[in-house]
Amino acid sequence: MRRIPILQIGAGGVGQALIEQVLWFNEHRGGRYGFRFAYIGLADRQGAIVADERIPPLVLRDAIDAKRAGGSLADAEAGGPLRDWRNLLSPDPCVVIDVTAQDGAEDGLIAAIEQGHRVVLANKKPLCAGHESFTALTHGGRTRYEATVGAGLPVISTLQMLLDTGDRVERISGCFSGTLGYLLSELESGAAYSAAVREARARGWTEPDPRDDLSGMDVARKALILARTAGMQLELSDVAVEPLFGSDLADQLPEAFMSQLERMDESFRERVAQAAADERVLRYVADVHGGAARIGLTAVERDSAIGALRGPDNLVVFTTQRYSERPLSVRGPGAGVEVTASAVLSDLIGHAREWR
Amino acid sequence: MRRIPILQIGAGGVGQALIEQVLWFNEHRGGRYGFRFAYIGLADRQGAIVADERIPPLVLRDAIDAKRAGGSLADAEAGGPLRDWRNLLSPDPCVVIDVTAQDGAEDGLIAAIEQGHRVVLANKKPLCAGHESFTALTHGGRTRYEATVGAGLPVISTLQMLLDTGDRVERISGCFSGTLGYLLSELESGAAYSAAVREARARGWTEPDPRDDLSGMDVARKALILARTAGMQLELSDVAVEPLFGSDLADQLPEAFMSQLERMDESFRERVAQAAADERVLRYVADVHGGAARIGLTAVERDSAIGALRGPDNLVVFTTQRYSERPLSVRGPGAGVEVTASAVLSDLIGHAREWR
Repeated sequence: MRRIPILQIGAGGVGQALIEQVLWFNEHRGGRYGFRFAYIGLADRQGAIVADERIPPLVLRDAIDAKRAGGSLADAEAGGPLRDWRNLLSPDPCVVIDVTAQDGAEDGLIAAIEQGHRVVLANKKPLCAGHESFTALTHGGRTRYEATVGAGLPVISTLQMLLDTGDRVERISGCFSGTLGYLLSELESGAAYSAAVREARARGWTEPDPRDDLSGMDVARKALILARTAGMQLELSDVAVEPLFGSDLADQLPEAFMSQLERMDESFRERVAQAAADERVLRYVADVHGGAARIGLTAVERDSAIGALRGPDNLVVFTTQRYSERPLSVRGPGAGVEVTASAVLSDLIGHAREWR
Repeated sequence: MRRIPILQIGAGGVGQALIEQVLWFNEHRGGRYGFRFAYIGLADRQGAIVADERIPPLVLRDAIDAKRAGGSLADAEAGGPLRDWRNLLSPDPCVVIDVTAQDGAEDGLIAAIEQGHRVVLANKKPLCAGHESFTALTHGGRTRYEATVGAGLPVISTLQMLLDTGDRVERISGCFSGTLGYLLSELESGAAYSAAVREARARGWTEPDPRDDLSGMDVARKALILARTAGMQLELSDVAVEPLFGSDLADQLPEAFMSQLERMDESFRERVAQAAADERVLRYVADVHGGAARIGLTAVERDSAIGALRGPDNLVVFTTQRYSERPLSVRGPGAGVEVTASAVLSDLIGHAREWR
């Protein structure tokens, strides 16, 4: 039975779900594959737990409980003060898992790869830094990142399969934001923009500042990751993004922004009505095609694959040389802690199966 | 650069496309992954080509040309008389690829696995023999078979991901036959059953005897493979199948069957009209659920995911504990030599990345 050492950065919702899934895998699937994962480190901003051989399952479960009770990893048995995760790396190869949303992790991750470690990302940001970082991270399959687009949906693996078998990707399009999908469904059924945004925020479906979703930047990062995976040399600043709020509201404080939502109601009502008059519906569409990536509100035919999408489901449509007239598409919820964690675990299994 | 020895059984349309894709991979992707595939054997019913180290690309291309010109592998340079492919196995581990539609291959493939070889299947039949054969073939991931359901669509890998990460599969449903999807679309737009079957046969979209498609057995095999992969202990005879022709026509000679197609026109016209009156459409639906698998003509809501399917596209819908209210689905063409070969190559790459 091989032992696959893993080091997890991040212990929020996805990180906690991942720990539980990894422990489940060790117990129920490890025997079949001939390996088990061994946590050698678990770190977040507030603290870290380390072990030479393996953090015991009980300590990991204790850490989850501590976090859920609003405490820190340092409160868990064997927890210690915060250290830079790079100090936790052993000389033996391990898999470094980033399930944070932190900026600037790419340099440390690239250094880890150069030392012979492997990486799994749910964090999109390391893949959206300069193109050279992307190449250094992903070269030779040392970094896997299925969770970054569509969470548990098989998006990156499908794209990789198309590329590895010599298909030519002509276009990748679809809807990559459940939050914005929900918002546009609400507008379509007659809700005002201000009411729909407030409702989504109240349900916890947006970030505390809804502009983090409405800006389209999260969708832009996903489009950039797909474009780069397909071989395009793009930067995040090359992605054309149409935000779902007026540019004059960009610099307001969050509460000032929330109090002025009504200013957008009329223009959204008009766009929805105009689309309906053309027998179309509005969707927030990402389109990667011809060396460029564009994100924005688009009036699509009601009967099209994207038009048929309802509510918060994601859809990714691959049009290729082999899938030309009839594309290959993947659809389903593209967010959630359980399904995001499952994509990370699936990538961990992929690395482990290649372990030598 | 590692060398991954492969032995291919079958040199029909899929087999020829696979050879071209493998040669493309060796040239364009092998460097990135650090391995290349080496054909040590290529065999079909009429002949075989063998090499100790590697059949040269030119000889493989010559073999494709010979087959396309209606000749046999023995006509290709270095081709020899037919031998049982098992005699072509070297003591060194290789990957055995079955891209035939032959019956009874399972015993030889299981023996190869027991000798340390790995297997990739586009042939569904070895996975549809007794349940013990299925277990012996698939245990420990030694056999990969993405191409057997939905051709190049990510169906088996998605199911495996769900299972490996501890999700619980509640239901797998959808439309697994492009030919029958086309037929039902034609009926929906007013064509007579007899005309639609004749048209599909004339275009080469059915087997020479269309009952091979209309019987639903090909769909039943796919449903069985999904059910078994999900852990159900079923035999092919346990799958409830409703054929798309009257049982009194089952024993007729093919041409006698073709001459009596009109006898079914009226009953199909009635079923289509009845479904339309209920605002439903007819689809040939496979449903794996609650320990059973059922295949048959089903009137589904026009707005449902299955009802929205048009023409020959396949659709596979996974409803699980994590994807419950909103399922995960994969859609696209589920047949064709290029996309079937790409699934086989993808499985080959999967084996090669695990090679040790």
